[in-house]
Amino acid sequence: MNKTFVQTIFARRSIRKYTDEAVSQENIQTLLEAAMAAPSASNRKPWQFVVVTKRETLDLLAEQHPHGKMLADATLGIAVCGDLTEMERYWVQDCSAATENLLLAATALGLGAVWLGVYPRDERIAVVRDILALPEHITPLNVIAIGHPAEEKEPRTQYDEARVHWERW
Amino acid sequence: MNKTFVQTIFARRSIRKYTDEAVSQENIQTLLEAAMAAPSASNRKPWQFVVVTKRETLDLLAEQHPHGKMLADATLGIAVCGDLTEMERYWVQDCSAATENLLLAATALGLGAVWLGVYPRDERIAVVRDILALPEHITPLNVIAIGHPAEEKEPRTQYDEARVHWERW
Repeated sequence: MNKTFVQTIFARRSIRKYTDEAVSQENIQTLLEAAMAAPSASNRKPWQFVVVTKRETLDLLAEQHPHGKMLADATLGIAVCGDLTEMERYWVQDCSAATENLLLAATALGLGAVWLGVYPRDERIAVVRDILALPEHITPLNVIAIGHPAEEKEPRTQYDEARVHWERW
Repeated sequence: MNKTFVQTIFARRSIRKYTDEAVSQENIQTLLEAAMAAPSASNRKPWQFVVVTKRETLDLLAEQHPHGKMLADATLGIAVCGDLTEMERYWVQDCSAATENLLLAATALGLGAVWLGVYPRDERIAVVRDILALPEHITPLNVIAIGHPAEEKEPRTQYDEARVHWERW
């Protein structure tokens, strides 16, 4: 392993502007492989992914998600969803770890992405469920807007020593 | 960016055996900086970290967490906790993303780590709260056992095309 890989973690920023260049099928595949390399409780892998590249569907999501405007520019959207029949207790944690892997892989591939929260807001869940035709046992955790970046942000950490406690609180 | 960072994502495995070499202060700092580079809803950063290196505390956690045996060998434990006064709706997602960053940074640094689930199991929350003296508004999401690895695992993804849906469910 290489210590400089940690730099990718700092380079991951929320990117909300994209060019109109499509994300390649090879890159989509890598994003999904990275997401499904995340750990999950008892290795139950309660995740499901809906990959959206159709302009019409991305525009619908952009209109109906209250903070989803950038989906109208994104060439790719991926909804990370939980299968609650697979794992009810830890699905949010498992799907969040998978999402973070996906965002970091996007950064490593030179793509830009932003995490749009859906769960636990009922009205957002209903909208995404409707647009993506999700069955009742599948709950959308988020929609990730992805594209080739048309904005740059500096790498950073938001490290704050006030949030670190040594040996006990 | 470096496409090979994606390899770090595949190289991250749950490592449960460690040597007795301590994790350096510099590496602990990097792990925390990586964790606090995660995205969070409305950038509220509802995370708090308790860093444990004392043998006695690690042994107590090992005894009292039902799957925590490996903490008796780990030279470092980090409890990732949520501050529910900061963000009630999304704290689990935000703290899970921070945890995944921490695990990936550990991999990049040549360390081994494993995520031990705590929240939402009340009995585990009570045990960790008690040992680490957490106040009522702080909820432990997990305890991460960390050390220099004494076992090797192959990189992998658990990619499964049955979990990928194109354009809609």
